[in-house]
Amino acid sequence: MTKLIKRITAPLLSLIFLLNMSSAGMAETTVSAEVGFIFNTLLFLICGFLVMFMAAGFAMLESGMVTSKSVSVICAKNIGLYAIAGIMFWLVGYNLAYGIPEGGYIGTFMPWSDASAIDTGYADGSDWFFQMVFCATTVSICSGAMAERIKLWPFFLFAAILAGVIYPIVMGWQWGEGWLYTIGFSDFAGSTLVHSTGGAAALAGIILLGARTGRFDSKGNPKALQPFAASSIPLVTIGVFILWLGWFGFNGGSQLALGTFDDAVAISTIFINTNLAACGGVLAAGVITRLMYGKTDVIQMLNGAIGGLVAITAEPLAPSPFAAILIGAVGGMIVVFGTKLLFSFKLDDVVGAIPAHLFAGIWGTLAVPLTNTDVTFSAQLIGVLSVNIFVFAVSYIVWSVMKGIFGIRLSKEAETKGTDVTETGVIAYAIRD
Amino acid sequence: MTKLIKRITAPLLSLIFLLNMSSAGMAETTVSAEVGFIFNTLLFLICGFLVMFMAAGFAMLESGMVTSKSVSVICAKNIGLYAIAGIMFWLVGYNLAYGIPEGGYIGTFMPWSDASAIDTGYADGSDWFFQMVFCATTVSICSGAMAERIKLWPFFLFAAILAGVIYPIVMGWQWGEGWLYTIGFSDFAGSTLVHSTGGAAALAGIILLGARTGRFDSKGNPKALQPFAASSIPLVTIGVFILWLGWFGFNGGSQLALGTFDDAVAISTIFINTNLAACGGVLAAGVITRLMYGKTDVIQMLNGAIGGLVAITAEPLAPSPFAAILIGAVGGMIVVFGTKLLFSFKLDDVVGAIPAHLFAGIWGTLAVPLTNTDVTFSAQLIGVLSVNIFVFAVSYIVWSVMKGIFGIRLSKEAETKGTDVTETGVIAYAIRD
Amino acid sequence: MTKLIKRITAPLLSLIFLLNMSSAGMAETTVSAEVGFIFNTLLFLICGFLVMFMAAGFAMLESGMVTSKSVSVICAKNIGLYAIAGIMFWLVGYNLAYGIPEGGYIGTFMPWSDASAIDTGYADGSDWFFQMVFCATTVSICSGAMAERIKLWPFFLFAAILAGVIYPIVMGWQWGEGWLYTIGFSDFAGSTLVHSTGGAAALAGIILLGARTGRFDSKGNPKALQPFAASSIPLVTIGVFILWLGWFGFNGGSQLALGTFDDAVAISTIFINTNLAACGGVLAAGVITRLMYGKTDVIQMLNGAIGGLVAITAEPLAPSPFAAILIGAVGGMIVVFGTKLLFSFKLDDVVGAIPAHLFAGIWGTLAVPLTNTDVTFSAQLIGVLSVNIFVFAVSYIVWSVMKGIFGIRLSKEAETKGTDVTETGVIAYAIRD
Repeated sequence: MTKLIKRITAPLLSLIFLLNMSSAGMAETTVSAEVGFIFNTLLFLICGFLVMFMAAGFAMLESGMVTSKSVSVICAKNIGLYAIAGIMFWLVGYNLAYGIPEGGYIGTFMPWSDASAIDTGYADGSDWFFQMVFCATTVSICSGAMAERIKLWPFFLFAAILAGVIYPIVMGWQWGEGWLYTIGFSDFAGSTLVHSTGGAAALAGIILLGARTGRFDSKGNPKALQPFAASSIPLVTIGVFILWLGWFGFNGGSQLALGTFDDAVAISTIFINTNLAACGGVLAAGVITRLMYGKTDVIQMLNGAIGGLVAITAEPLAPSPFAAILIGAVGGMIVVFGTKLLFSFKLDDVVGAIPAHLFAGIWGTLAVPLTNTDVTFSAQLIGVLSVNIFVFAVSYIVWSVMKGIFGIRLSKEAETKGTDVTETGVIAYAIRD
Repeated sequence: MTKLIKRITAPLLSLIFLLNMSSAGMAETTVSAEVGFIFNTLLFLICGFLVMFMAAGFAMLESGMVTSKSVSVICAKNIGLYAIAGIMFWLVGYNLAYGIPEGGYIGTFMPWSDASAIDTGYADGSDWFFQMVFCATTVSICSGAMAERIKLWPFFLFAAILAGVIYPIVMGWQWGEGWLYTIGFSDFAGSTLVHSTGGAAALAGIILLGARTGRFDSKGNPKALQPFAASSIPLVTIGVFILWLGWFGFNGGSQLALGTFDDAVAISTIFINTNLAACGGVLAAGVITRLMYGKTDVIQMLNGAIGGLVAITAEPLAPSPFAAILIGAVGGMIVVFGTKLLFSFKLDDVVGAIPAHLFAGIWGTLAVPLTNTDVTFSAQLIGVLSVNIFVFAVSYIVWSVMKGIFGIRLSKEAETKGTDVTETGVIAYAIRD
Repeated sequence: MTKLIKRITAPLLSLIFLLNMSSAGMAETTVSAEVGFIFNTLLFLICGFLVMFMAAGFAMLESGMVTSKSVSVICAKNIGLYAIAGIMFWLVGYNLAYGIPEGGYIGTFMPWSDASAIDTGYADGSDWFFQMVFCATTVSICSGAMAERIKLWPFFLFAAILAGVIYPIVMGWQWGEGWLYTIGFSDFAGSTLVHSTGGAAALAGIILLGARTGRFDSKGNPKALQPFAASSIPLVTIGVFILWLGWFGFNGGSQLALGTFDDAVAISTIFINTNLAACGGVLAAGVITRLMYGKTDVIQMLNGAIGGLVAITAEPLAPSPFAAILIGAVGGMIVVFGTKLLFSFKLDDVVGAIPAHLFAGIWGTLAVPLTNTDVTFSAQLIGVLSVNIFVFAVSYIVWSVMKGIFGIRLSKEAETKGTDVTETGVIAYAIRD
């Protein structure tokens, strides 16, 4: 069928193409400005709603990973943070990022307002929407790590600061053409800007919070699965599939345009590499856990997908398919070993966000020069260090101030009862036979 | 990146734009009829599948909100009603709505058939699909309120009447350019036509059905959560996120065209306002329940999102972002206080559909003149009253007739056993350790 | 609203259309080659991500259908097989299918590489992506039938062979314009090539595996629901809704082009017929089980949707809406009676994949000549027989070889403990009050 259509339409299309070129005298494109504008806007809207849906993916992944005593709170956190991020990114975030002077460090504190014009190439609002869901993703990343012992409203306050100030600042450094952009840093869709940022903020949080009561034994080993077993593996699974789906929007939309032959081809390549990297991450985690532990750890396979996706996000366009698989597979391995590393420091990341987003994000960003020769390792290293140190430090300060003023950790009694009873007053699962 | 691309492409695009304008002699648009046709059709198809997926959102929201004895039946209802709505809207609904004479009251009883032509601007079938999923949404809205005590097949019969006759009639009054349209009523995507209609039909049903056995004590207070606890909060959560996602299609597609600069900009604005209104609804409900009850009620936050979304649906294009947040926040408040109001009348709306869809729909429709000065409050009031009274009255009659002939409520014994055992013979959760 | 817009824009669009036609001298299309290229590529990407998401649908459907002792393994299988299919279809599958000589039997063993050019009409990578997710769907279909007693890694090995070799070979016979295509076989989106293939591979597997221990009594009746009850009906439900959503991409994208008036109209028709067939399947299964058993079996309604969707997949464009409903309704009936048929042979298909995909796929393929008069029944019969016999035979051999070498069935002890404990070491649901 495909072949036939190619055979029939190819000469016809070529003819029309040539006719158009000659009649319009345009060698470069036969897409009018308005048609291009619509295509580009449509790309942002489609990719935007895919990334928006990642909020549901995080909510499900985290709901499934926490114990059944903390699921309602995780749901409250995820719906709440998405709401907060949307408002903050309109109120201050967007212009803190894009209002930055060239090569500068910070933009302006102004709400976003629509400045659509045909010569910008896309509807301004569609770009805002697409960037907003990236901002929300950053906050989603850090919502799960601190689960089961953090107070709800301090988390919301931190979410507002992360979405409105911290993320937009580092975003502006690069995508607003601030100082990192000037030195040649490259981060196509945000392995560092989004994923490491979310992970670094979470790391600061779990250090200050401490582990869940009883999580580690005296020798620093995590307790056997119970009583910290993940509440629902199918919810984790649908969460990961939703994230994987959303990632086509995340990376594909970061091409920022659809209205030319080159853009359409590039987005297709990005879809393929994004998918193959995730495949590599799943299989690497599956094989490693089978070999190391004798069981095929489904949670690590699922987080391996995330690790692979995060790793390819810094450069989903340049790699060959085979390179994409390898980059993703390393991302999956990093998830497995990163989890062990956190355990060895008695750091309690409930959902594995730090290995998957921070560690795999560092890997993906540093790996860009392997496939994109326009990028230098030194620029990548500066970007990774500056963003992660800045985000970690500011987050640490913010968490510390909140800890000092009103506390961020629930009482031991509340933790024992379960955060659902204490914070939302709603039990998550009421299943009777 | 974005900035750079703007800088590089803007002059180029402007040039091409000017060239095209001069060469083609078209000041108004550079989009050919066929390209516009494809864009508009694509909008309906994309937004249509997003709204179609809302059926899954309602199924999950309702599955999570009912007790675990009635989940299988809710799933049967939701898949069944979507199937019924699709067939009825083809068989009679579409032409009952669009076959209406200008300024009239009812269309014709004829199955839909395809009448695509390039000068209509979009594929007729894509419009049918988009309108059909709206019809199904209306029926979905009323499926949860009556849960846990209604018989399955009478519900299906009502679903057929609502999808095939009641909804299409009121839809025709406005979107078919019937009498409401003539008097200047405005309901962009259906705060009243879809959401209030579903809610009013449900209200008639729960009045006639009565509350679940044992739901209210002698003083009219609802019993403490158990034994009426929601079966699964994460399912409610994914349901709400799916609805939120679908709403971009619901409101965005209601622009009805994508093939011009203006349409692309308008849809972007609609996406933003839709999103911000939901954000406002979530936060309003979260803050209010925290202040009123000392707990952050996750269920109300989730329903608050729906309230915000319903509220903005009557006019998602005209408001500023800040106005959208406020309109949504009021929608979220209405959900919280509407729930209390229903309790005070001992009305048992199992999933909170009436506060979120009927009450917030009324608010959103009446609020249109606040941001769209072309619309009068009196026209809005007439629309709200006429649609809601008509739908409530007809639904009340239909439910009453069914109650008289074969009964609509399950036996007390069946209710005690659980509707899953009685109606589907399938228990919803079979979880063994 | 719609009407108004039509009224205003129709003459304007006609005018522009005529102007364009006259000025450009093109009677056939006003879509330039580049714009058409972008539209076609966009169709593959959108429909591709919808079909990709079907992987989540299968994962949820199967997670819900197995007992709660085998849910983690089902999740591992589904994420793992999707990863394997993606890599295998790149490594060998695509060129095994499309590298086939005209009228031939098998293509070449070469990894896919990008060959995009404007005169092919779409980005090569977007086609690869779209075809890859079809391949993954085929493997997903056969993952659930053998649940609860198959070893994980032998399943993964089979998945690699099915995705990399078996499916691409039969795919090439038709869509690569091999011998089936030459004789006039017609299978628009894969009732036989995808769905029967998955089902036939599963049938071979369950014959060799045998039923779950204790599944059938001495007289061959399946045991009462417990202890083989489906673990979660809402997960089955969201799974089916996701599959239904994905099917718009599955069938709509199989039009293979969007860049003309005719394509846009055709895809709209495909959406409608796909939807109505599923509606027919749901209602047929609901009515039949209500009449036969006195209960409205929600599982059969849900699988009835799948049966309807599979049935329409061979020809979603030619049927009238009414014909689509009937084709789907027969598909739904086939699911109900096919389930009984398997029981009578003591074949234990845990999720009902064989009735829904193999049996309904045969029906749909043989029914094509009823609505598409260009197609002969004999060609359809040859296609159905050749594909199913080939896939069944090769699968039977592969499963047998694996059975002989390292075994494919878990020990009785492992089966009793549950595959989750044995294979993944992760229990699926850890719900504490």
